[in-house]
Amino acid sequence: MTVKPTLHTCLSPALLHLYDVSSSIVIIIDVFRATSTIAAALYNGAKSVIPVDSVPKAIEIAKNIDGIAAGERDGKVADGLQYGNSPLVYSKDFIDGKTLVLTTTNGTRLLQMALDKNAQTIIAGSFPNISAVCDFLINEKKNVVLGCAGWKDRFNLEDTLFAGAVIHRIKKYFQIHCDSSVMADALYTKHQKNLLAFAPQLTHYHRLVERFGLIDDIKFCLDNDVANVLPVYEDGKLIVRNT
Amino acid sequence: MTVKPTLHTCLSPALLHLYDVSSSIVIIIDVFRATSTIAAALYNGAKSVIPVDSVPKAIEIAKNIDGIAAGERDGKVADGLQYGNSPLVYSKDFIDGKTLVLTTTNGTRLLQMALDKNAQTIIAGSFPNISAVCDFLINEKKNVVLGCAGWKDRFNLEDTLFAGAVIHRIKKYFQIHCDSSVMADALYTKHQKNLLAFAPQLTHYHRLVERFGLIDDIKFCLDNDVANVLPVYEDGKLIVRNT
Repeated sequence: MTVKPTLHTCLSPALLHLYDVSSSIVIIIDVFRATSTIAAALYNGAKSVIPVDSVPKAIEIAKNIDGIAAGERDGKVADGLQYGNSPLVYSKDFIDGKTLVLTTTNGTRLLQMALDKNAQTIIAGSFPNISAVCDFLINEKKNVVLGCAGWKDRFNLEDTLFAGAVIHRIKKYFQIHCDSSVMADALYTKHQKNLLAFAPQLTHYHRLVERFGLIDDIKFCLDNDVANVLPVYEDGKLIVRNT
Repeated sequence: MTVKPTLHTCLSPALLHLYDVSSSIVIIIDVFRATSTIAAALYNGAKSVIPVDSVPKAIEIAKNIDGIAAGERDGKVADGLQYGNSPLVYSKDFIDGKTLVLTTTNGTRLLQMALDKNAQTIIAGSFPNISAVCDFLINEKKNVVLGCAGWKDRFNLEDTLFAGAVIHRIKKYFQIHCDSSVMADALYTKHQKNLLAFAPQLTHYHRLVERFGLIDDIKFCLDNDVANVLPVYEDGKLIVRNT
Protein backbone atom coordinates (compact mmCIF):
# COMPACT_ATOMS: atom_id res chain seq x y z
CA MET A 1 0.00 0.00 0.00
CA THR A 2 1.33 3.40 -0.92
CA VAL A 3 1.74 5.76 2.01
CA LYS A 4 -0.22 8.93 1.42
CA PRO A 5 1.55 12.26 1.74
CA THR A 6 0.75 14.42 4.77
CA LEU A 7 -1.30 17.61 4.87
CA HIS A 8 -1.11 20.26 7.58
CA THR A 9 -2.74 23.65 8.01
CA CYS A 10 -0.66 26.44 9.53
CA LEU A 11 -3.09 29.03 10.96
CA SER A 12 -0.64 31.93 11.31
CA PRO A 13 2.83 32.87 10.05
CA ALA A 14 3.86 32.84 13.74
CA LEU A 15 3.30 29.06 13.76
CA LEU A 16 5.18 28.24 10.54
CA HIS A 17 8.23 27.00 12.48
CA LEU A 18 6.12 24.06 13.71
CA TYR A 19 5.83 22.54 10.24
CA ASP A 20 8.33 20.75 8.03
CA VAL A 21 8.23 23.24 5.21
CA SER A 22 11.43 22.07 3.52
CA SER A 23 9.88 18.78 2.42
CA SER A 24 6.50 20.26 1.48
CA ILE A 25 4.60 22.21 -1.10
CA VAL A 26 3.56 25.40 0.70
CA ILE A 27 0.36 27.13 -0.39
CA ILE A 28 0.40 30.82 0.48
CA ILE A 29 -3.17 31.83 1.34
CA ASP A 30 -4.13 35.48 1.65
CA VAL A 31 -7.74 35.48 0.49
CA PHE A 32 -8.38 39.20 1.19
CA ARG A 33 -6.68 39.99 -1.09
CA ALA A 34 -3.06 39.28 -2.08
CA THR A 35 -3.37 35.77 -3.45
CA SER A 36 -6.70 36.54 -5.14
CA THR A 37 -5.04 39.53 -6.81
CA ILE A 38 -2.05 37.44 -7.89
CA ALA A 39 -4.41 34.91 -9.50
CA ALA A 40 -6.42 37.69 -11.20
CA ALA A 41 -3.35 39.44 -12.61
CA LEU A 42 -1.81 36.23 -13.96
CA TYR A 43 -5.13 35.02 -15.33
CA ASN A 44 -5.49 38.29 -17.19
CA GLY A 45 -2.12 37.92 -18.84
CA ALA A 46 0.46 39.45 -16.50
CA LYS A 47 3.90 38.07 -17.41
CA SER A 48 4.65 37.61 -13.73
CA VAL A 49 4.01 38.97 -10.24
CA ILE A 50 7.07 39.93 -8.21
CA PRO A 51 6.24 39.96 -4.48
CA VAL A 52 8.40 42.38 -2.47
CA ASP A 53 8.41 43.39 1.17
CA SER A 54 8.51 47.19 0.95
CA VAL A 55 7.07 50.09 -1.01
CA PRO A 56 10.48 51.60 -1.97
CA LYS A 57 11.58 48.21 -3.28
CA ALA A 58 8.37 47.86 -5.31
CA ILE A 59 8.91 51.29 -6.86
CA GLU A 60 12.58 50.64 -7.65
CA ILE A 61 12.05 47.22 -9.23
CA ALA A 62 9.03 48.38 -11.23
CA LYS A 63 11.08 51.30 -12.58
CA ASN A 64 13.95 49.06 -13.68
CA ILE A 65 11.79 46.56 -15.53
CA ASP A 66 9.03 48.93 -16.68
CA GLY A 67 6.54 47.09 -14.47
CA ILE A 68 3.63 48.24 -12.36
CA ALA A 69 4.31 48.91 -8.69
CA ALA A 70 1.35 48.20 -6.46
CA GLY A 71 0.52 47.33 -2.92
CA GLU A 72 -1.42 47.92 0.22
CA ARG A 73 -0.87 48.65 3.85
CA ASP A 74 -3.70 48.18 6.35
CA GLY A 75 -6.25 47.61 3.60
CA LYS A 76 -5.50 50.80 1.61
CA VAL A 77 -3.31 51.63 -1.38
CA ALA A 78 0.13 52.04 0.17
CA ASP A 79 1.48 55.60 0.41
CA GLY A 80 3.61 56.40 -2.62
CA LEU A 81 1.88 53.90 -4.90
CA GLN A 82 -0.79 54.42 -7.49
CA TYR A 83 -2.32 50.95 -7.49
CA GLY A 84 -3.45 48.81 -4.58
CA ASN A 85 -4.35 45.25 -3.85
CA SER A 86 -7.77 45.03 -5.48
CA PRO A 87 -8.05 42.09 -7.87
CA LEU A 88 -10.61 44.05 -9.90
CA VAL A 89 -8.00 46.60 -10.95
CA TYR A 90 -5.99 44.00 -12.83
CA SER A 91 -8.20 43.51 -15.88
CA LYS A 92 -6.84 42.18 -19.15
CA ASP A 93 -6.83 45.68 -20.66
CA PHE A 94 -4.61 46.92 -17.91
CA ILE A 95 -2.24 44.08 -17.02
CA ASP A 96 -1.84 41.88 -20.12
CA GLY A 97 1.82 41.41 -20.94
CA LYS A 98 3.02 43.50 -18.00
CA THR A 99 4.84 42.65 -14.78
CA LEU A 100 3.19 43.45 -11.44
CA VAL A 101 5.48 44.28 -8.51
CA LEU A 102 3.32 43.75 -5.44
CA THR A 103 3.81 44.47 -1.76
CA THR A 104 1.12 43.52 0.80
CA THR A 105 0.74 43.35 4.57
CA ASN A 106 0.55 39.64 5.19
CA GLY A 107 0.83 37.48 2.07
CA THR A 108 4.20 38.79 0.90
CA ARG A 109 5.66 38.30 4.36
CA LEU A 110 4.50 34.68 4.65
CA LEU A 111 5.91 33.92 1.20
CA GLN A 112 9.28 35.32 2.28
CA MET A 113 9.18 33.21 5.46
CA ALA A 114 8.44 30.04 3.45
CA LEU A 115 11.37 30.88 1.15
CA ASP A 116 13.68 31.43 4.13
CA LYS A 117 12.69 27.98 5.40
CA ASN A 118 13.51 26.41 2.04
CA ALA A 119 10.03 25.36 1.07
CA GLN A 120 10.22 22.74 -1.65
CA THR A 121 7.64 24.49 -3.83
CA ILE A 122 5.60 27.64 -3.19
CA ILE A 123 2.28 28.33 -4.85
CA ALA A 124 -0.38 31.00 -4.28
CA GLY A 125 -3.92 29.87 -3.50
CA SER A 126 -7.30 31.57 -3.32
CA PHE A 127 -10.91 30.81 -4.19
CA PRO A 128 -10.46 32.34 -7.68
CA ASN A 129 -7.93 29.60 -8.49
CA ILE A 130 -9.00 26.79 -6.16
CA SER A 131 -9.37 24.09 -8.82
CA ALA A 132 -5.91 24.72 -10.25
CA VAL A 133 -4.45 24.49 -6.73
CA CYS A 134 -6.30 21.28 -5.86
CA ASP A 135 -5.47 19.57 -9.16
CA PHE A 136 -1.81 20.41 -8.66
CA LEU A 137 -1.73 19.07 -5.09
CA ILE A 138 -3.45 15.84 -6.08
CA ASN A 139 -1.10 15.27 -9.01
CA GLU A 140 2.14 16.08 -7.20
CA LYS A 141 1.57 13.53 -4.41
CA LYS A 142 3.86 15.44 -2.03
CA ASN A 143 3.46 16.67 1.54
CA VAL A 144 1.44 19.87 1.78
CA VAL A 145 1.39 22.81 4.19
CA LEU A 146 -1.58 25.14 3.75
CA GLY A 147 -0.17 28.43 5.01
CA CYS A 148 -2.70 31.02 6.16
CA ALA A 149 -1.27 34.54 6.01
CA GLY A 150 -3.69 35.80 8.67
CA TRP A 151 -3.68 39.43 9.78
CA LYS A 152 -0.46 40.57 11.44
CA ASP A 153 0.05 37.06 12.80
CA ARG A 154 -3.52 36.71 14.05
CA PHE A 155 -5.74 33.86 12.94
CA ASN A 156 -8.30 34.88 10.36
CA LEU A 157 -11.44 33.21 9.15
CA GLU A 158 -11.16 33.76 5.39
CA ASP A 159 -7.78 32.10 4.98
CA THR A 160 -8.94 29.23 7.19
CA LEU A 161 -12.10 28.86 5.09
CA PHE A 162 -9.98 28.53 1.96
CA ALA A 163 -7.74 25.96 3.63
CA GLY A 164 -10.93 24.11 4.59
CA ALA A 165 -12.24 24.28 1.02
CA VAL A 166 -9.02 22.72 -0.28
CA ILE A 167 -9.09 20.01 2.42
CA HIS A 168 -12.74 19.30 1.66
CA ARG A 169 -11.81 18.55 -1.96
CA ILE A 170 -8.52 16.66 -1.58
CA LYS A 171 -8.54 15.01 1.85
CA LYS A 172 -8.89 11.47 0.58
CA TYR A 173 -5.48 11.72 -1.09
CA PHE A 174 -3.66 12.73 2.12
CA GLN A 175 -2.93 11.60 5.67
CA ILE A 176 -4.33 14.30 7.94
CA HIS A 177 -3.36 14.16 11.62
CA CYS A 178 -3.78 17.84 12.26
CA ASP A 179 -6.41 19.53 14.41
CA SER A 180 -6.14 22.78 12.44
CA SER A 181 -7.09 20.92 9.27
CA VAL A 182 -10.05 19.17 10.92
CA MET A 183 -11.27 22.55 12.20
CA ALA A 184 -10.79 24.27 8.81
CA ASP A 185 -12.67 21.49 7.02
CA ALA A 186 -15.53 21.67 9.56
CA LEU A 187 -15.75 25.47 9.29
CA TYR A 188 -15.82 25.38 5.50
CA THR A 189 -18.36 22.55 5.41
CA LYS A 190 -20.67 24.54 7.68
CA HIS A 191 -20.55 27.65 5.48
CA GLN A 192 -19.81 26.35 1.99
CA LYS A 193 -23.32 26.94 0.67
CA ASN A 194 -23.08 30.64 1.31
CA LEU A 195 -19.69 32.07 2.14
CA LEU A 196 -20.90 35.58 1.38
CA ALA A 197 -23.61 35.35 4.04
CA PHE A 198 -20.96 34.36 6.61
CA ALA A 199 -18.57 37.14 5.53
CA PRO A 200 -20.00 39.90 7.78
CA GLN A 201 -18.72 37.90 10.78
CA LEU A 202 -15.12 38.32 9.57
CA THR A 203 -13.07 41.13 11.14
CA HIS A 204 -11.46 41.72 7.75
CA TYR A 205 -14.90 42.21 6.18
CA HIS A 206 -15.43 45.21 8.44
CA ARG A 207 -12.06 46.62 7.51
CA LEU A 208 -12.64 46.25 3.76
CA VAL A 209 -16.37 46.84 3.40
CA GLU A 210 -17.34 49.23 6.17
CA ARG A 211 -14.21 51.35 5.98
CA PHE A 212 -13.43 51.16 2.28
CA GLY A 213 -16.64 49.98 0.57
CA LEU A 214 -14.92 47.06 -1.15
CA ILE A 215 -17.85 44.64 -1.31
CA ASP A 216 -17.12 43.78 -4.97
CA ASP A 217 -13.60 42.77 -3.97
CA ILE A 218 -15.04 40.47 -1.30
CA LYS A 219 -17.40 38.87 -3.83
CA PHE A 220 -14.58 38.25 -6.30
CA CYS A 221 -12.30 36.85 -3.59
CA LEU A 222 -14.93 34.32 -2.44
CA ASP A 223 -15.81 33.13 -5.96
CA ASN A 224 -14.47 29.79 -7.19
CA ASP A 225 -12.34 29.53 -10.31
CA VAL A 226 -12.87 33.02 -11.72
CA ALA A 227 -9.10 33.28 -12.31
CA ASN A 228 -8.17 29.63 -12.48
CA VAL A 229 -4.41 29.61 -13.01
CA LEU A 230 -1.62 28.08 -10.92
CA PRO A 231 0.85 30.72 -9.66
CA VAL A 232 4.19 29.08 -8.84
CA TYR A 233 7.13 30.93 -7.30
CA GLU A 234 10.31 30.59 -9.37
CA ASP A 235 13.44 32.74 -9.35
CA GLY A 236 11.90 35.62 -7.45
CA LYS A 237 8.57 35.76 -9.18
CA LEU A 238 5.20 34.11 -9.44
CA ILE A 239 4.46 32.79 -12.91
CA VAL A 240 1.73 30.61 -14.34
CA ARG A 241 2.55 26.94 -14.51
CA ASN A 242 0.54 25.18 -17.14
CA THR A 243 -0.87 22.00 -15.69
CA MET B 1 -24.07 53.38 27.48
CA THR B 2 -21.47 51.32 29.26
CA VAL B 3 -18.71 50.03 27.01
CA LYS B 4 -18.49 46.27 27.21
CA PRO B 5 -15.14 44.69 28.00
CA THR B 6 -13.33 42.87 25.19
CA LEU B 7 -12.89 39.13 24.74
CA HIS B 8 -10.21 37.46 22.65
CA THR B 9 -9.23 33.84 22.09
CA CYS B 10 -5.55 33.01 21.81
CA LEU B 11 -5.24 29.72 19.93
CA SER B 12 -1.66 28.86 20.88
CA PRO B 13 0.93 29.98 23.45
CA ALA B 14 3.03 31.07 20.44
CA LEU B 15 0.41 33.77 19.72
CA LEU B 16 0.10 35.12 23.28
CA HIS B 17 2.29 38.15 22.47
CA LEU B 18 -0.49 39.43 20.17
CA TYR B 19 -2.87 40.05 23.07
CA ASP B 20 -2.95 42.66 25.80
CA VAL B 21 -2.60 40.26 28.68
CA SER B 22 -1.61 42.86 31.27
CA SER B 23 -5.06 44.45 31.29
CA SER B 24 -6.98 41.17 31.10
CA ILE B 25 -8.15 38.17 33.01
CA VAL B 26 -6.38 35.23 31.37
CA ILE B 27 -8.07 31.83 31.40
CA ILE B 28 -5.57 29.00 31.09
CA ILE B 29 -7.23 26.21 29.10
CA ASP B 30 -5.68 22.75 28.93
CA VAL B 31 -8.71 20.50 28.66
CA PHE B 32 -6.72 17.23 28.25
CA ARG B 33 -5.86 17.32 31.10
CA ALA B 34 -4.05 19.88 33.26
CA THR B 35 -6.84 22.34 33.96
CA SER B 36 -9.42 19.56 34.38
CA THR B 37 -7.08 17.93 36.90
CA ILE B 38 -6.55 21.22 38.73
CA ALA B 39 -10.34 21.67 39.02
CA ALA B 40 -10.78 18.06 40.21
CA ALA B 41 -8.06 18.28 42.87
CA LEU B 42 -9.34 21.58 44.27
CA TYR B 43 -12.95 20.43 44.14
CA ASN B 44 -11.97 17.36 46.14
CA GLY B 45 -10.38 19.43 48.87
CA ALA B 46 -6.77 20.01 47.85
CA LYS B 47 -5.43 23.02 49.78
CA SER B 48 -3.79 24.29 46.63
CA VAL B 49 -2.17 23.26 43.36
CA ILE B 50 1.35 24.54 42.73
CA PRO B 51 2.16 24.49 39.00
CA VAL B 52 5.86 24.07 38.26
CA ASP B 53 7.83 23.71 35.05
CA SER B 54 10.04 20.70 35.78
CA VAL B 55 9.97 17.30 37.43
CA PRO B 56 12.94 17.96 39.78
CA LYS B 57 11.28 21.18 40.96
CA ALA B 58 8.00 19.33 41.58
CA ILE B 59 9.83 16.69 43.65
CA GLU B 60 11.80 19.28 45.64
CA ILE B 61 8.83 21.50 46.45
CA ALA B 62 6.58 18.56 47.34
CA LYS B 63 9.28 17.25 49.71
CA ASN B 64 9.62 20.59 51.49
CA ILE B 65 5.91 21.08 52.08
CA ASP B 66 4.88 17.44 52.41
CA GLY B 67 2.83 17.71 49.24
CA ILE B 68 2.20 15.35 46.35
CA ALA B 69 4.45 15.67 43.32
CA ALA B 70 2.72 14.79 40.07
CA GLY B 71 2.93 15.43 36.40
CA GLU B 72 3.04 14.20 32.85
CA ARG B 73 5.23 14.38 29.81
CA ASP B 74 3.82 13.41 26.41
CA GLY B 75 0.64 12.03 27.95
CA LYS B 76 2.31 9.67 30.46
CA VAL B 77 3.27 9.92 34.13
CA ALA B 78 6.57 11.80 34.03
CA ASP B 79 9.69 9.77 34.75
CA GLY B 80 10.58 10.01 38.43
CA LEU B 81 7.03 10.72 39.57
CA GLN B 82 4.43 8.40 41.03
CA TYR B 83 1.31 10.29 40.02
CA GLY B 84 0.32 11.71 36.66
CA ASN B 85 -2.13 14.13 35.19
CA SER B 86 -5.34 12.10 35.37
CA PRO B 87 -8.17 13.99 37.11
CA LEU B 88 -9.60 10.65 38.28
CA VAL B 89 -6.61 10.02 40.55
CA TYR B 90 -7.38 13.04 42.69
CA SER B 91 -10.40 11.76 44.60
CA LYS B 92 -11.41 13.21 47.96
CA ASP B 93 -9.92 10.22 49.81
CA PHE B 94 -6.57 10.88 48.25
CA ILE B 95 -6.21 14.66 47.94
CA ASP B 96 -8.35 16.26 50.65
CA GLY B 97 -6.28 18.69 52.72
CA LYS B 98 -3.11 18.10 50.70
CA THR B 99 -1.10 20.25 48.30
CA LEU B 100 -0.59 19.05 44.74
CA VAL B 101 2.63 20.08 42.98
CA LEU B 102 1.92 19.63 39.29
CA THR B 103 4.05 19.80 36.16
CA THR B 104 2.52 19.29 32.70
CA THR B 105 3.54 19.65 29.06
CA ASN B 106 1.45 22.60 27.95
CA GLY B 107 -0.77 24.12 30.65
CA THR B 108 1.99 24.91 33.13
CA ARG B 109 4.04 26.57 30.42
CA LEU B 110 1.20 28.84 29.27
CA LEU B 111 0.49 29.84 32.87
CA GLN B 112 4.13 30.84 33.31
CA MET B 113 4.01 32.86 30.06
CA ALA B 114 0.88 34.71 31.24
CA LEU B 115 2.63 35.47 34.54
CA ASP B 116 5.72 36.76 32.73
CA LYS B 117 3.47 39.10 30.75
CA ASN B 118 1.89 40.42 33.95
CA ALA B 119 -1.61 39.09 33.42
CA GLN B 120 -4.00 40.97 35.67
CA THR B 121 -5.66 37.77 36.94
CA ILE B 122 -5.03 34.14 35.99
CA ILE B 123 -7.65 31.43 36.37
CA ALA B 124 -7.78 27.80 35.21
CA GLY B 125 -10.70 26.74 33.04
CA SER B 126 -12.08 23.41 31.84
CA PHE B 127 -15.45 21.79 31.20
CA PRO B 128 -15.53 20.39 34.78
CA ASN B 129 -15.61 23.97 36.12
CA ILE B 130 -17.16 25.90 33.21
CA SER B 131 -19.99 27.51 35.19
CA ALA B 132 -17.66 28.85 37.86
CA VAL B 133 -15.44 30.33 35.14
CA CYS B 134 -18.33 31.92 33.23
CA ASP B 135 -19.95 33.37 36.35
CA PHE B 136 -16.64 34.92 37.37
CA LEU B 137 -16.04 36.47 33.94
CA ILE B 138 -19.56 37.93 33.80
CA ASN B 139 -19.27 39.40 37.30
CA GLU B 140 -15.78 40.87 36.93
CA LYS B 141 -16.65 42.92 33.81
CA LYS B 142 -13.02 43.04 32.72
CA ASN B 143 -11.25 42.26 29.45
CA VAL B 144 -10.75 38.55 28.89
CA VAL B 145 -8.17 36.46 27.02
CA LEU B 146 -9.10 32.80 26.63
CA GLY B 147 -5.69 31.15 26.40
CA CYS B 148 -5.57 27.73 24.75
CA ALA B 149 -2.54 25.74 25.86
CA GLY B 150 -2.58 23.64 22.68
CA TRP B 151 -0.04 20.89 22.11
CA LYS B 152 3.57 22.06 21.92
CA ASP B 153 2.39 25.35 20.42
CA ARG B 154 0.10 23.69 17.90
CA PHE B 155 -3.59 24.53 17.74
CA ASN B 156 -5.80 21.89 19.30
CA LEU B 157 -9.50 21.23 19.03
CA GLU B 158 -10.36 20.47 22.66
CA ASP B 159 -9.06 23.74 24.10
CA THR B 160 -10.75 25.63 21.26
CA LEU B 161 -14.02 23.82 21.97
CA PHE B 162 -13.85 24.93 25.59
CA ALA B 163 -13.12 28.52 24.56
CA GLY B 164 -16.14 28.25 22.26
CA ALA B 165 -18.31 26.89 25.08
CA VAL B 166 -17.39 29.87 27.27
CA ILE B 167 -18.02 32.33 24.43
CA HIS B 168 -21.33 30.66 23.68
CA ARG B 169 -22.45 31.36 27.26
CA ILE B 170 -21.07 34.84 27.89
CA LYS B 171 -20.78 36.59 24.51
CA LYS B 172 -23.57 39.06 25.11
CA TYR B 173 -21.57 40.64 27.93
CA PHE B 174 -18.49 41.30 25.79
CA GLN B 175 -17.31 43.08 22.65
CA ILE B 176 -15.89 40.39 20.39
CA HIS B 177 -13.92 41.52 17.34
CA CYS B 178 -11.82 38.41 17.07
CA ASP B 179 -11.93 35.80 14.32
CA SER B 180 -10.55 33.10 16.65
CA SER B 181 -13.51 33.63 18.98
CA VAL B 182 -16.05 33.50 16.14
CA MET B 183 -14.49 30.25 14.95
CA ALA B 184 -14.39 28.72 18.46
CA ASP B 185 -18.03 29.62 19.05
CA ALA B 186 -19.05 28.11 15.68
CA LEU B 187 -17.08 24.93 16.33
CA TYR B 188 -18.59 24.48 19.78
CA THR B 189 -22.12 25.24 18.57
CA LYS B 190 -21.77 22.58 15.90
CA HIS B 191 -20.66 19.88 18.35
CA GLN B 192 -22.19 20.92 21.68
CA LYS B 193 -24.86 18.23 21.68
CA ASN B 194 -22.29 15.46 21.64
CA LEU B 195 -18.70 16.43 22.31
CA LEU B 196 -17.81 12.82 23.01
CA ALA B 197 -18.91 11.75 19.53
CA PHE B 198 -16.62 14.41 18.02
CA ALA B 199 -13.68 13.45 20.24
CA PRO B 200 -12.25 10.68 17.99
CA GLN B 201 -11.39 13.41 15.45
CA LEU B 202 -8.99 15.03 17.94
CA THR B 203 -5.30 14.20 17.61
CA HIS B 204 -5.04 14.22 21.40
CA TYR B 205 -7.80 11.62 21.64
CA HIS B 206 -5.60 9.18 19.75
CA ARG B 207 -2.69 9.91 22.05
CA LEU B 208 -4.73 9.41 25.22
CA VAL B 209 -7.20 6.70 24.25
CA GLU B 210 -5.49 4.55 21.65
CA ARG B 211 -2.04 4.68 23.25
CA PHE B 212 -2.97 4.83 26.93
CA GLY B 213 -6.60 3.67 27.18
CA LEU B 214 -7.71 6.79 29.00
CA ILE B 215 -11.30 7.01 27.77
CA ASP B 216 -12.62 7.68 31.28
CA ASP B 217 -10.32 10.67 31.54
CA ILE B 218 -11.71 12.00 28.27
CA LYS B 219 -15.28 11.58 29.51
CA PHE B 220 -14.53 13.43 32.75
CA CYS B 221 -12.70 16.21 30.92
CA LEU B 222 -15.65 16.84 28.57
CA ASP B 223 -18.29 16.84 31.32
CA ASN B 224 -19.74 20.15 32.52
CA ASP B 225 -19.50 21.22 36.16
CA VAL B 226 -18.36 17.94 37.71
CA ALA B 227 -15.72 19.87 39.67
CA ASN B 228 -17.23 23.31 39.70
CA VAL B 229 -14.74 25.48 41.57
CA LEU B 230 -12.86 28.59 40.50
CA PRO B 231 -9.05 28.08 40.60
CA VAL B 232 -7.31 31.45 40.85
CA TYR B 233 -3.53 31.89 40.77
CA GLU B 234 -2.21 33.77 43.79
CA ASP B 235 1.31 33.87 45.21
CA GLY B 236 2.61 30.91 43.27
CA LYS B 237 -0.35 28.61 43.65
CA LEU B 238 -3.84 27.94 42.43
CA ILE B 239 -6.45 28.13 45.17
CA VAL B 240 -10.22 28.10 45.21
CA ARG B 241 -11.84 31.50 45.19
CA ASN B 242 -15.29 31.39 46.65
CA THR B 243 -17.66 33.28 44.38
